[in-house]
Amino acid sequence: MRSLGRDFNHLIFNEKDMTLTVLDQRLLPTRTKWFVVVDAKTAYEAIKNMIVRGAPLIGVVGAYGLALELYRHREPDEGHATRTARYIASARPTAVNLSYCVNRVLKAYLKSLDWRDAVNEASKIVLEEERASYMIGVHGSKLLNDGDTVLTHCNAGALATVRYGTALAPIRVAVKNEGKNIRVVATETRPVLQGARLTTFELLKDGIPTTLVPDTAVGYLMQKGLVDKVIVGADRVLASGHTFNKIGTYQIAVLAKLHSIPFYVALPTSTFDLKSSLDDVVIEERDPREVTHIRGRRIAPRGVSVINPAFDVTPPEYITAFITERGVLEPPFHDRIPSLVAESRRTTI
Amino acid sequence: MRSLGRDFNHLIFNEKDMTLTVLDQRLLPTRTKWFVVVDAKTAYEAIKNMIVRGAPLIGVVGAYGLALELYRHREPDEGHATRTARYIASARPTAVNLSYCVNRVLKAYLKSLDWRDAVNEASKIVLEEERASYMIGVHGSKLLNDGDTVLTHCNAGALATVRYGTALAPIRVAVKNEGKNIRVVATETRPVLQGARLTTFELLKDGIPTTLVPDTAVGYLMQKGLVDKVIVGADRVLASGHTFNKIGTYQIAVLAKLHSIPFYVALPTSTFDLKSSLDDVVIEERDPREVTHIRGRRIAPRGVSVINPAFDVTPPEYITAFITERGVLEPPFHDRIPSLVAESRRTTI
Repeated sequence: MRSLGRDFNHLIFNEKDMTLTVLDQRLLPTRTKWFVVVDAKTAYEAIKNMIVRGAPLIGVVGAYGLALELYRHREPDEGHATRTARYIASARPTAVNLSYCVNRVLKAYLKSLDWRDAVNEASKIVLEEERASYMIGVHGSKLLNDGDTVLTHCNAGALATVRYGTALAPIRVAVKNEGKNIRVVATETRPVLQGARLTTFELLKDGIPTTLVPDTAVGYLMQKGLVDKVIVGADRVLASGHTFNKIGTYQIAVLAKLHSIPFYVALPTSTFDLKSSLDDVVIEERDPREVTHIRGRRIAPRGVSVINPAFDVTPPEYITAFITERGVLEPPFHDRIPSLVAESRRTTI
Repeated sequence: MRSLGRDFNHLIFNEKDMTLTVLDQRLLPTRTKWFVVVDAKTAYEAIKNMIVRGAPLIGVVGAYGLALELYRHREPDEGHATRTARYIASARPTAVNLSYCVNRVLKAYLKSLDWRDAVNEASKIVLEEERASYMIGVHGSKLLNDGDTVLTHCNAGALATVRYGTALAPIRVAVKNEGKNIRVVATETRPVLQGARLTTFELLKDGIPTTLVPDTAVGYLMQKGLVDKVIVGADRVLASGHTFNKIGTYQIAVLAKLHSIPFYVALPTSTFDLKSSLDDVVIEERDPREVTHIRGRRIAPRGVSVINPAFDVTPPEYITAFITERGVLEPPFHDRIPSLVAESRRTTI
């Protein structure tokens, strides 16, 4: 049994039983409950229902879901493997890491038709993700000054990844390795409240001073000079630099630019998608109950219609730089993103 | 017994008992409960704890609270009246209507030291507020075209006033009197969720198509061209046009300007404050539990710090026009606001 998510023990692979146990993030921080992924169906459920969330983490869970399905299916079966990969990737269409990771496991399997190669590829992805997060922290921490207050949206922390986080990695490295005083402002991030529930929980556990604010207070805080930098994660970034991330990211980026506050996007290079154009990417619309109910209790009247997009798109002109495991990428992005991705396919870090 | 809030029966004055019964808006739309104001203390409680909210409505409840206190106190007492007025006005410091209305009742009382004059002044305020809301609707509806989608923030509707609302009055008049097709987008308005709970409830009851969205989705909707106009209310507007309104208003105004969407502020002239400058106005910070708990249930970890400002300030350059009971006021505001207020003190509408 190996805890893959070593900061939070939120991801445990049991090689004897061939199961992946994940922390049910919907109930944090008030309850700790576990969910066991044993095959494609349970992986799909964990991802679709947001038991696990965060682009890098759903990639890892998808990868293991496919590997475990292939293990349980036993017989070498190319068609079943391909269909299963497509099925898991459809659980959440916007984040690119899911299809990227599932496709890597599929490719590894198709070479040998041996489930062991699928499991090995999933393990390899975990190690790469952990290393990438750490290096995002190392590169990003250089952008943070002692005394900075950093605003972050949603949860792009250890709970969204294998370890360290993406947006939170630079903060962790700045505080823990470099001894800088950094304060964090976490937006609560309606409707699913990942900021209120997960980011605050993670950072308090690490002893990093964290202030929770409603999503409506971002403009106020910036107007009052209470935010020095913004760092967010990403679910998919196109070659142009257009960034798909949690709903609300775009408006924070607009406000940051107006107030001359640097706006950084932290991500592993696996989150870049060089193939798609803006119109190709489906923005997932989620269940209206996420908005009309909070923790199972109705807050809005019956019969009201709801728009509940999970993501929005931030155009590149609002982004100061991307923080990746290979360094900090400044504009012009449309040249630099493709070369960075090409380089990442040639060399490992 | 007179229902003053005729759209919603949310404000009932009983002349026999000398009580003001108000609907407890904290529990809407899922529960209907009443609260009885009999004196200054109960009025203070109703306003402070947001049993009633909305700048015009808390003005009316404050006015009746003072009048009922003077009735119960019986003996003519200048000092007690003055202290009580100050006490009620302190329940919520940002909205100007509260101190404006309470001071009018105090002034009426101080002339005669007869509580009947205080009650009469409160009744006069109610009639003026109702008339002002209706006329805001008449003037504002001219700005709305058939087929428009109007985004509004918080609740500046009938429940925030005596009747019709401020921001919602132009929509009501456009739909009901002029037969225009208008759709409304209501932001949920964290932390107190006045949009999700009250605006949707009011508009559905009136048969006006309403879509609820998280506060994080405003930028997304505007980027997609799904919003034609924005109308909000106000708690205090300075001579310069700087507008104090529900937290989140400023960032919506910034986004509206970026997307070339007209941004209107609807208010009775009693909401203008010509005396104060920007630094004079206290922005109320409310209980952290409004953010860490939803409907009594904890959503954020213990020990997290919170910033929970109730209001923010929108600078005049983001405001297309003010909609008042005396007409639509376009820039330059710093000349036109003082003349409008002076005119309103000379003539009644």
